[in-house]
Amino acid sequence: MNFQTALAEAAGRVQACLATELRGYGSEPIIDAMRYAVTGGKGLRGFLVMESARLHGVSESQSIWAAAAVEAVHAYSLVHDDLPAMDDDDLRRGQPTVHVKWDEATAILAGDALQTLAFDLLAREGCARDPARRVALIATLAEAAGARGMVLGQAQDIAAETAAAPLTLAQITELQANKTGALIRWSAEAGARLAGADPAPLSAYATALGLAFQIADDILDVEGDAETAGKRLRKDEDAGKATFVSLLGLEGAKARAAALVEEAEEALSPFGATAETLRAAARFVIAREK
Amino acid sequence: MNFQTALAEAAGRVQACLATELRGYGSEPIIDAMRYAVTGGKGLRGFLVMESARLHGVSESQSIWAAAAVEAVHAYSLVHDDLPAMDDDDLRRGQPTVHVKWDEATAILAGDALQTLAFDLLAREGCARDPARRVALIATLAEAAGARGMVLGQAQDIAAETAAAPLTLAQITELQANKTGALIRWSAEAGARLAGADPAPLSAYATALGLAFQIADDILDVEGDAETAGKRLRKDEDAGKATFVSLLGLEGAKARAAALVEEAEEALSPFGATAETLRAAARFVIAREK
Repeated sequence: MNFQTALAEAAGRVQACLATELRGYGSEPIIDAMRYAVTGGKGLRGFLVMESARLHGVSESQSIWAAAAVEAVHAYSLVHDDLPAMDDDDLRRGQPTVHVKWDEATAILAGDALQTLAFDLLAREGCARDPARRVALIATLAEAAGARGMVLGQAQDIAAETAAAPLTLAQITELQANKTGALIRWSAEAGARLAGADPAPLSAYATALGLAFQIADDILDVEGDAETAGKRLRKDEDAGKATFVSLLGLEGAKARAAALVEEAEEALSPFGATAETLRAAARFVIAREK
Repeated sequence: MNFQTALAEAAGRVQACLATELRGYGSEPIIDAMRYAVTGGKGLRGFLVMESARLHGVSESQSIWAAAAVEAVHAYSLVHDDLPAMDDDDLRRGQPTVHVKWDEATAILAGDALQTLAFDLLAREGCARDPARRVALIATLAEAAGARGMVLGQAQDIAAETAAAPLTLAQITELQANKTGALIRWSAEAGARLAGADPAPLSAYATALGLAFQIADDILDVEGDAETAGKRLRKDEDAGKATFVSLLGLEGAKARAAALVEEAEEALSPFGATAETLRAAARFVIAREK
């Protein structure tokens, strides 16, 4: 089975898990909006959770809860990021964004409730029998998602739009380490935390992977096809924002991303052949078309 | 010491705890907005946590973390509720709302990060040495705050504005049990959960208290003074929304609130004189002017 098929299958299982969960929530528009928001994504973060869990001998029936949790956080961040007051996007995953399909109030509340749901899922016994392991996942997710992680990165990204000078490479790197890197790192480390193992060996992998992911995003914004990507492209260029492409040039950015993928692959050498799927995930992030 | 002094002192300690926490977060506008959002409230929910904890022999140096967590959730819900796409309020606690003082993007992100912070605080060892107790607080807070609790109530409230017919008393009661009742209930039960005790004895108290609180809010909206309340009043009447006052009449609403406070006080009889402060809290919710 090739990597993209494996990724799509895992994403389908995580989305089904979230849909089943939400079936118990009633039929208000906000619940429909939550279900809609967790549907159709690549599911890379959830996949990283399940793969790092497998690497540590944790079953998928267990790791799927942490995978669903991180996908819920990711979905909430996209719903809020797409709002008119933020990035003002009307297209996501090839579909109208939540505030376009419903309205802004529903998008704000559905996003809020998706974040809550993430912590709800991590607090369950199915996620890890040992409460200390659940608490470790919750504490680290809160750090990765909050005002010292993802949300800080989103705020830095918005501030950059009105900054007097374009960001430097160091500033962009820090911004992206927060905005997308923190959640990707949490995902890759989650398997170790589920097993009560040291997450450090996966940290180098995840850090390189997160940065490669964002550089690839910037390349996709310039080179990609909007229909395939399922979202508007060339937004950064139009907004005059500094990106890895504007700072390194297109070829420079591609070279840097490729070097990072190599770095990510090498970080997995202690795991030998069992980590082959995570290596494929690293190669995928720079080869993807959406 | 009278009740309002005790409440103000406790609120000051919770706000100081949150301010100290946020000092470690850097100096971005979003951090300032978070600090601003947790400042100046009555602090009733945090007070309920600390009082129910005291009733169960849990020290304030421990219960303050859960108190800070629930105040962070409450503050986030107000910041998002005040947004133009929601209630569109420009005044809160006598001060400009977050999106007025900063902007909408900052308000959305500061609210998001305050929710994350709540789970962060509950996951710490200071909150409860036993991870199982921390997980119990996290799981129940997620249920109370999410799409089966507070956020559901907010969505029902917004839906009511465009509903064909005004809500019935049963519908308003259910809406409010979600919108404000769930978090008040969590707060009053938290002390038992921190002690590993059965939270059921406090449930009857908290349920009556939560409903009395909302009826009092509706009465305040009609009878209150905007300057004392620190927020715009008469909004429900202007919007033609059904409230406990419109459904029961002003005197009927007052009688119902008073009966609920009596019910709440009686529910505490197993605790004897040690629960006097919680009884005073119940009397306070219908006597308050803001």
